[in-house]
Amino acid sequence: MHVIVDFTIVPLGTGISLSPYIAEVERVLERTGLTYALHANGTGIEGDWDEVMEAIRTCHETLHGMGVPRVHTVLQAGTRTDRPQHMADKIASVESRLGR
Amino acid sequence: MHVIVDFTIVPLGTGISLSPYIAEVERVLERTGLTYALHANGTGIEGDWDEVMEAIRTCHETLHGMGVPRVHTVLQAGTRTDRPQHMADKIASVESRLGR
Amino acid sequence: MHVIVDFTIVPLGTGISLSPYIAEVERVLERTGLTYALHANGTGIEGDWDEVMEAIRTCHETLHGMGVPRVHTVLQAGTRTDRPQHMADKIASVESRLGR
Amino acid sequence: MHVIVDFTIVPLGTGISLSPYIAEVERVLERTGLTYALHANGTGIEGDWDEVMEAIRTCHETLHGMGVPRVHTVLQAGTRTDRPQHMADKIASVESRLGR
Repeated sequence: MHVIVDFTIVPLGTGISLSPYIAEVERVLERTGLTYALHANGTGIEGDWDEVMEAIRTCHETLHGMGVPRVHTVLQAGTRTDRPQHMADKIASVESRLGR
Repeated sequence: MHVIVDFTIVPLGTGISLSPYIAEVERVLERTGLTYALHANGTGIEGDWDEVMEAIRTCHETLHGMGVPRVHTVLQAGTRTDRPQHMADKIASVESRLGR
Repeated sequence: MHVIVDFTIVPLGTGISLSPYIAEVERVLERTGLTYALHANGTGIEGDWDEVMEAIRTCHETLHGMGVPRVHTVLQAGTRTDRPQHMADKIASVESRLGR
Repeated sequence: MHVIVDFTIVPLGTGISLSPYIAEVERVLERTGLTYALHANGTGIEGDWDEVMEAIRTCHETLHGMGVPRVHTVLQAGTRTDRPQHMADKIASVESRLGR
Protein backbone atom coordinates (compact mmCIF):
# COMPACT_ATOMS: atom_id res chain seq x y z
CA MET A 1 0.00 0.00 0.00
CA HIS A 2 1.40 3.37 -1.10
CA VAL A 3 1.46 6.08 1.59
CA ILE A 4 2.29 9.78 1.64
CA VAL A 5 3.73 10.76 5.02
CA ASP A 6 4.75 14.06 6.54
CA PHE A 7 6.73 13.80 9.76
CA THR A 8 8.54 15.93 12.31
CA ILE A 9 11.08 14.22 14.52
CA VAL A 10 11.86 15.85 17.87
CA PRO A 11 14.94 14.72 19.86
CA LEU A 12 14.50 15.20 23.64
CA GLY A 13 17.11 15.46 26.36
CA THR A 14 19.82 16.90 24.07
CA GLY A 15 19.71 20.67 24.35
CA ILE A 16 17.87 22.96 22.01
CA SER A 17 19.87 22.96 18.80
CA LEU A 18 18.16 20.26 16.80
CA SER A 19 19.65 20.83 13.35
CA PRO A 20 22.54 18.31 13.71
CA TYR A 21 19.95 15.61 14.38
CA ILE A 22 17.62 16.70 11.59
CA ALA A 23 20.57 16.70 9.17
CA GLU A 24 21.35 13.11 10.19
CA VAL A 25 17.71 12.16 9.63
CA GLU A 26 17.96 13.53 6.09
CA ARG A 27 21.06 11.37 5.49
CA VAL A 28 19.17 8.30 6.68
CA LEU A 29 16.31 9.09 4.30
CA GLU A 30 18.73 9.66 1.41
CA ARG A 31 20.05 6.14 1.87
CA THR A 32 16.56 4.59 1.71
CA GLY A 33 16.07 5.58 -1.92
CA LEU A 34 12.55 6.77 -1.12
CA THR A 35 11.19 10.09 -2.45
CA TYR A 36 11.39 12.70 0.29
CA ALA A 37 11.43 16.48 0.65
CA LEU A 38 12.53 18.62 3.58
CA HIS A 39 10.46 21.69 4.51
CA ALA A 40 10.77 24.25 7.30
CA ASN A 41 8.89 22.21 9.88
CA GLY A 42 9.27 18.61 8.83
CA THR A 43 9.85 16.19 5.98
CA GLY A 44 7.52 14.69 3.39
CA ILE A 45 8.22 11.12 2.30
CA GLU A 46 6.32 8.59 0.21
CA GLY A 47 6.48 4.94 -0.80
CA ASP A 48 5.34 1.52 0.37
CA TRP A 49 3.85 1.69 3.89
CA ASP A 50 6.28 -0.80 5.42
CA GLU A 51 9.34 0.80 3.84
CA VAL A 52 8.34 4.29 4.98
CA MET A 53 7.66 3.16 8.53
CA GLU A 54 10.93 1.22 8.59
CA ALA A 55 12.76 4.38 7.41
CA ILE A 56 11.29 6.36 10.27
CA ARG A 57 12.17 3.60 12.73
CA THR A 58 15.75 3.80 11.44
CA CYS A 59 15.69 7.57 12.10
CA HIS A 60 14.72 6.87 15.74
CA GLU A 61 17.43 4.22 16.07
CA THR A 62 20.02 6.53 14.51
CA LEU A 63 19.23 9.38 16.90
CA HIS A 64 19.33 7.02 19.88
CA GLY A 65 22.71 5.84 18.54
CA MET A 66 23.89 9.46 18.62
CA GLY A 67 23.08 9.56 22.35
CA VAL A 68 19.57 11.01 22.25
CA PRO A 69 17.66 9.35 25.12
CA ARG A 70 14.15 10.18 23.94
CA VAL A 71 12.73 10.73 20.46
CA HIS A 72 9.23 12.00 19.70
CA THR A 73 7.85 11.85 16.15
CA VAL A 74 4.69 13.47 14.83
CA LEU A 75 3.50 11.88 11.64
CA GLN A 76 0.61 12.20 9.23
CA ALA A 77 -0.05 9.32 6.84
CA GLY A 78 -2.44 9.41 3.89
CA THR A 79 -3.56 6.47 1.78
CA ARG A 80 -6.17 6.37 -0.96
CA THR A 81 -7.69 3.73 -3.18
CA ASP A 82 -9.59 5.87 -5.69
CA ARG A 83 -6.51 6.80 -7.71
CA PRO A 84 -2.70 6.91 -7.38
CA GLN A 85 -1.34 10.14 -5.92
CA HIS A 86 2.14 11.46 -5.24
CA MET A 87 3.39 14.42 -3.20
CA ALA A 88 4.17 16.40 -6.34
CA ASP A 89 0.54 16.03 -7.48
CA LYS A 90 -0.83 17.41 -4.22
CA ILE A 91 0.99 20.70 -4.36
CA ALA A 92 0.53 21.08 -8.13
CA SER A 93 -3.20 20.64 -7.72
CA VAL A 94 -3.48 23.49 -5.22
CA GLU A 95 -1.04 25.76 -7.07
CA SER A 96 -2.99 25.28 -10.28
CA ARG A 97 -6.23 26.40 -8.59
CA LEU A 98 -4.42 29.49 -7.32
CA GLY A 99 -3.32 30.33 -10.87
CA ARG A 100 0.37 30.04 -10.03
CA MET B 1 12.31 -1.18 19.76
CA HIS B 2 9.37 -0.45 22.07
CA VAL B 3 7.17 2.49 21.06
CA ILE B 4 4.25 4.32 22.64
CA VAL B 5 1.93 5.67 19.94
CA ASP B 6 -1.14 7.86 20.02
CA PHE B 7 -3.10 8.03 16.80
CA THR B 8 -6.24 9.47 15.30
CA ILE B 9 -7.57 7.90 12.12
CA VAL B 10 -9.77 10.04 9.87
CA PRO B 11 -11.78 8.41 7.06
CA LEU B 12 -12.43 10.80 4.14
CA GLY B 13 -15.08 10.66 1.46
CA THR B 14 -17.61 8.83 3.63
CA GLY B 15 -19.89 11.38 5.22
CA ILE B 16 -19.46 12.82 8.67
CA SER B 17 -20.44 10.04 11.05
CA LEU B 18 -17.11 8.44 11.78
CA SER B 19 -17.98 6.24 14.74
CA PRO B 20 -18.72 3.05 12.71
CA TYR B 21 -15.19 3.27 11.31
CA ILE B 22 -13.57 4.03 14.64
CA ALA B 23 -15.40 1.08 16.18
CA GLU B 24 -13.99 -1.18 13.45
CA VAL B 25 -10.50 0.20 14.13
CA GLU B 26 -10.90 -0.81 17.79
CA ARG B 27 -11.86 -4.33 16.70
CA VAL B 28 -8.73 -4.55 14.55
CA LEU B 29 -6.60 -3.43 17.49
CA GLU B 30 -8.28 -5.94 19.81
CA ARG B 31 -7.22 -8.74 17.48
CA THR B 32 -3.54 -7.65 17.51
CA GLY B 33 -3.13 -8.47 21.20
CA LEU B 34 -1.28 -5.17 21.71
CA THR B 35 -2.03 -2.90 24.69
CA TYR B 36 -4.28 -0.05 23.55
CA ALA B 37 -6.70 2.47 25.05
CA LEU B 38 -9.40 4.52 23.35
CA HIS B 39 -9.84 8.16 24.41
CA ALA B 40 -12.15 10.92 23.20
CA ASN B 41 -9.94 12.04 20.33
CA GLY B 42 -7.81 9.04 19.43
CA THR B 43 -6.27 5.80 20.62
CA GLY B 44 -3.09 5.04 22.53
CA ILE B 45 -1.24 1.85 21.65
CA GLU B 46 2.14 0.42 22.57
CA GLY B 47 4.45 -2.43 21.65
CA ASP B 48 7.21 -3.33 19.23
CA TRP B 49 7.62 -0.62 16.55
CA ASP B 50 7.00 -2.94 13.59
CA GLU B 51 3.95 -4.59 15.17
CA VAL B 52 2.37 -1.23 16.06
CA MET B 53 2.94 0.18 12.57
CA GLU B 54 1.60 -3.00 11.01
CA ALA B 55 -1.52 -2.72 13.20
CA ILE B 56 -2.13 0.81 11.96
CA ARG B 57 -1.55 -0.29 8.36
CA THR B 58 -4.18 -2.98 8.93
CA CYS B 59 -6.57 -0.27 10.17
CA HIS B 60 -6.06 1.64 6.90
CA GLU B 61 -6.57 -1.53 4.85
CA THR B 62 -9.70 -2.41 6.82
CA LEU B 63 -11.28 1.01 6.28
CA HIS B 64 -10.45 0.89 2.57
CA GLY B 65 -12.07 -2.56 2.53
CA MET B 66 -15.23 -0.98 4.00
CA GLY B 67 -15.32 1.37 0.98
CA VAL B 68 -13.51 4.39 2.39
CA PRO B 69 -11.53 5.89 -0.50
CA ARG B 70 -9.14 7.98 1.53
CA VAL B 71 -7.76 7.54 5.04
CA HIS B 72 -5.71 10.13 6.93
CA THR B 73 -3.93 9.19 10.16
CA VAL B 74 -2.24 11.50 12.65
CA LEU B 75 0.23 9.69 14.84
CA GLN B 76 2.68 10.52 17.58
CA ALA B 77 5.40 7.98 18.37
CA GLY B 78 7.71 8.09 21.38
CA THR B 79 10.76 5.90 21.99
CA ARG B 80 13.32 6.13 24.78
CA THR B 81 16.52 4.34 25.68
CA ASP B 82 17.12 5.64 29.21
CA ARG B 83 14.53 3.37 30.83
CA PRO B 84 11.49 1.26 29.91
CA GLN B 85 8.19 3.14 29.96
CA HIS B 86 4.58 2.17 29.38
CA MET B 87 1.44 4.23 28.83
CA ALA B 88 0.20 3.48 32.34
CA ASP B 89 3.43 4.93 33.80
CA LYS B 90 3.04 8.20 31.92
CA ILE B 91 -0.36 9.09 33.27
CA ALA B 92 0.44 7.78 36.77
CA SER B 93 3.51 10.00 36.88
CA VAL B 94 1.53 13.16 36.16
CA GLU B 95 -1.41 12.21 38.39
CA SER B 96 0.97 11.56 41.27
CA ARG B 97 2.46 15.05 40.95
CA LEU B 98 -1.04 16.49 41.00
CA GLY B 99 -1.76 14.65 44.26
CA ARG B 100 -4.59 12.61 42.73
CA MET C 1 -17.08 28.68 17.39
CA HIS C 2 -16.92 25.55 19.56
CA VAL C 3 -13.83 23.38 19.12
CA ILE C 4 -12.70 20.02 20.45
CA VAL C 5 -8.92 19.93 20.76
CA ASP C 6 -6.46 17.22 21.68
CA PHE C 7 -2.94 18.39 22.36
CA THR C 8 0.45 17.16 23.48
CA ILE C 9 2.91 19.69 24.80
CA VAL C 10 6.61 18.84 24.62
CA PRO C 11 9.16 20.92 26.59
CA LEU C 12 12.61 20.94 24.95
CA GLY C 13 15.99 21.70 26.45
CA THR C 14 15.03 20.54 29.96
CA GLY C 15 16.08 16.94 30.35
CA ILE C 16 13.86 13.97 29.82
CA SER C 17 11.52 13.90 32.79
CA LEU C 18 8.54 15.82 31.48
CA SER C 19 5.94 15.06 34.15
CA PRO C 20 6.61 18.18 36.31
CA TYR C 21 5.82 20.30 33.27
CA ILE C 22 2.77 18.32 32.26
CA ALA C 23 1.46 18.58 35.82
CA GLU C 24 1.84 22.37 35.63
CA VAL C 25 -0.03 22.40 32.31
CA GLU C 26 -2.90 20.58 33.98
CA ARG C 27 -2.96 23.23 36.73
CA VAL C 28 -3.16 25.97 34.09
CA LEU C 29 -6.06 24.19 32.40
CA GLU C 30 -7.85 23.72 35.72
CA ARG C 31 -7.80 27.49 36.23
CA THR C 32 -9.38 28.17 32.81
CA GLY C 33 -12.66 26.54 33.78
CA LEU C 34 -12.75 24.74 30.42
CA THR C 35 -13.66 21.05 30.13
CA TYR C 36 -10.49 19.00 29.78
CA ALA C 37 -9.30 15.42 30.28
CA LEU C 38 -5.79 14.08 30.63
CA HIS C 39 -4.92 10.83 28.86
CA ALA C 40 -1.67 8.85 28.59
CA ASN C 41 -0.30 10.79 25.63
CA GLY C 42 -1.94 14.20 25.78
CA THR C 43 -4.93 16.20 26.93
CA GLY C 44 -8.38 16.73 25.44
CA ILE C 45 -9.97 20.13 25.90
CA GLU C 46 -13.04 21.83 24.48
CA GLY C 47 -14.72 25.22 24.40
CA ASP C 48 -14.76 28.44 22.42
CA TRP C 49 -11.93 28.50 19.83
CA ASP C 50 -10.32 31.69 21.17
CA GLU C 51 -10.48 30.56 24.81
CA VAL C 52 -8.97 27.16 24.03
CA MET C 53 -6.13 28.66 21.99
CA GLU C 54 -5.49 31.24 24.69
CA ALA C 55 -5.33 28.45 27.28
CA ILE C 56 -2.69 26.64 25.23
CA ARG C 57 -0.76 29.89 24.76
CA THR C 58 -0.81 30.28 28.55
CA CYS C 59 0.62 26.76 28.86
CA HIS C 60 3.53 27.77 26.59
CA GLU C 61 4.09 30.98 28.56
CA THR C 62 3.97 29.09 31.85
CA LEU C 63 6.57 26.54 30.74
CA HIS C 64 8.83 29.30 29.43
CA GLY C 65 8.38 30.99 32.83
CA MET C 66 9.63 27.76 34.47
CA GLY C 67 12.83 28.09 32.44
CA VAL C 68 11.99 25.89 29.45
CA PRO C 69 13.67 27.51 26.43
CA ARG C 70 11.68 25.76 23.74
CA VAL C 71 8.14 24.36 23.71
CA HIS C 72 6.63 22.25 20.94
CA THR C 73 2.90 21.52 20.87
CA VAL C 74 1.05 19.06 18.67
CA LEU C 75 -2.64 19.83 18.43
CA GLN C 76 -5.68 18.51 16.64
CA ALA C 77 -8.72 20.75 16.40
CA GLY C 78 -12.17 19.67 15.23
CA THR C 79 -15.13 21.94 14.48
CA ARG C 80 -18.49 21.01 13.02
CA THR C 81 -21.60 22.88 11.96
CA ASP C 82 -24.05 20.01 11.42
CA ARG C 83 -24.73 19.46 15.11
CA PRO C 84 -23.24 20.24 18.53
CA GLN C 85 -20.74 17.69 19.78
CA HIS C 86 -18.74 17.28 22.97
CA MET C 87 -15.82 15.03 23.87
CA ALA C 88 -18.04 12.81 26.00
CA ASP C 89 -20.30 12.18 22.97
CA LYS C 90 -17.42 11.05 20.79
CA ILE C 91 -16.24 8.27 23.03
CA ALA C 92 -19.78 7.22 23.99
CA SER C 93 -20.67 6.88 20.33
CA VAL C 94 -17.82 4.46 19.64
CA GLU C 95 -18.26 2.52 22.89
CA SER C 96 -21.95 2.06 22.13
CA ARG C 97 -21.14 0.54 18.72
CA LEU C 98 -18.72 -1.83 20.43
CA GLY C 99 -21.46 -2.95 22.81
CA ARG C 100 -19.60 -1.70 25.88
CA MET D 1 4.72 35.61 21.70
CA HIS D 2 6.11 34.61 18.30
CA VAL D 3 5.14 31.14 17.08
CA ILE D 4 6.10 28.98 14.12
CA VAL D 5 3.20 26.75 13.12
CA ASP D 6 2.80 23.99 10.58
CA PHE D 7 -0.76 22.89 9.93
CA THR D 8 -2.80 20.56 7.76
CA ILE D 9 -6.50 21.27 7.41
CA VAL D 10 -8.78 18.38 6.48
CA PRO D 11 -12.35 19.07 5.32
CA LEU D 12 -14.73 16.18 6.13
CA GLY D 13 -18.08 15.29 4.59
CA THR D 14 -17.28 16.86 1.20
CA GLY D 15 -15.94 14.15 -1.06
CA ILE D 16 -12.31 13.39 -1.62
CA SER D 17 -11.00 16.19 -3.79
CA LEU D 18 -9.66 18.59 -1.22
CA SER D 19 -7.67 21.00 -3.40
CA PRO D 20 -10.48 23.59 -3.87
CA TYR D 21 -10.63 23.94 -0.10
CA ILE D 22 -6.88 24.09 0.37
CA ALA D 23 -6.67 26.77 -2.33
CA GLU D 24 -9.28 28.81 -0.42
CA VAL D 25 -7.26 28.39 2.79
CA GLU D 26 -4.21 29.82 1.00
CA ARG D 27 -6.29 32.83 -0.07
CA VAL D 28 -7.35 33.39 3.54
CA LEU D 29 -3.73 33.25 4.67
CA GLU D 30 -2.66 35.65 1.91
CA ARG D 31 -5.11 38.23 3.28
CA THR D 32 -3.70 37.99 6.82
CA GLY D 33 -0.35 39.45 5.79
CA LEU D 34 1.44 36.76 7.84
CA THR D 35 4.46 34.87 6.46
CA TYR D 36 3.33 31.47 5.22
CA ALA D 37 4.53 28.74 2.86
CA LEU D 38 2.58 25.90 1.27
CA HIS D 39 4.22 22.46 1.06
CA ALA D 40 3.00 19.11 -0.23
CA ASN D 41 1.28 18.07 3.00
CA GLY D 42 0.44 21.29 4.79
CA THR D 43 1.30 24.93 5.31
CA GLY D 44 3.90 26.66 7.47
CA ILE D 45 2.94 30.00 9.00
CA GLU D 46 4.53 32.26 11.59
CA GLY D 47 3.76 35.40 13.58
CA ASP D 48 2.17 36.47 16.84
CA TRP D 49 0.42 33.54 18.58
CA ASP D 50 -3.01 35.18 18.67
CA GLU D 51 -2.85 36.32 15.05
CA VAL D 52 -1.80 32.89 13.80
CA MET D 53 -4.53 31.10 15.76
CA GLU D 54 -7.09 33.64 14.57
CA ALA D 55 -5.97 33.02 10.97
CA ILE D 56 -6.52 29.29 11.39
CA ARG D 57 -9.92 29.92 13.00
CA THR D 58 -10.81 32.01 9.95
CA CYS D 59 -9.80 29.06 7.73
CA HIS D 60 -12.25 26.83 9.64
CA GLU D 61 -15.00 29.44 9.39
CA THR D 62 -14.33 29.91 5.67
CA LEU D 63 -14.57 26.18 4.94
CA HIS D 64 -17.77 25.89 6.98
CA GLY D 65 -19.06 28.87 4.94
CA MET D 66 -18.35 26.87 1.76
CA GLY D 67 -20.64 24.12 3.08
CA VAL D 68 -18.10 21.83 4.74
CA PRO D 69 -19.84 20.36 7.81
CA ARG D 70 -16.75 19.18 9.64
CA VAL D 71 -13.17 20.47 9.63
CA HIS D 72 -10.22 18.74 11.26
CA THR D 73 -6.89 20.55 11.64
CA VAL D 74 -3.56 19.09 12.70
CA LEU D 75 -1.17 21.71 13.94
CA GLN D 76 2.32 21.89 15.39
CA ALA D 77 3.32 25.06 17.22
CA GLY D 78 6.85 25.94 18.34
CA THR D 79 7.86 28.80 20.61
CA ARG D 80 11.30 29.58 22.04
CA THR D 81 12.73 32.17 24.41
CA ASP D 82 16.47 31.59 23.93
CA ARG D 83 16.65 33.45 20.61
CA PRO D 84 14.41 34.67 17.78
CA GLN D 85 13.84 32.13 15.02
CA HIS D 86 11.97 32.18 11.73
CA MET D 87 10.94 29.41 9.35
CA ALA D 88 13.62 30.40 6.87
CA ASP D 89 16.30 29.94 9.57
CA LYS D 90 15.15 26.42 10.38
CA ILE D 91 15.56 25.02 6.90
CA ALA D 92 18.76 27.01 6.22
CA SER D 93 20.31 25.57 9.37
CA VAL D 94 19.72 21.97 8.28
CA GLU D 95 20.67 22.60 4.63
CA SER D 96 23.93 24.20 5.74
CA ARG D 97 24.86 21.10 7.78
CA LEU D 98 24.13 18.96 4.74
CA GLY D 99 26.53 21.06 2.65
CA ARG D 100 23.76 22.21 0.30
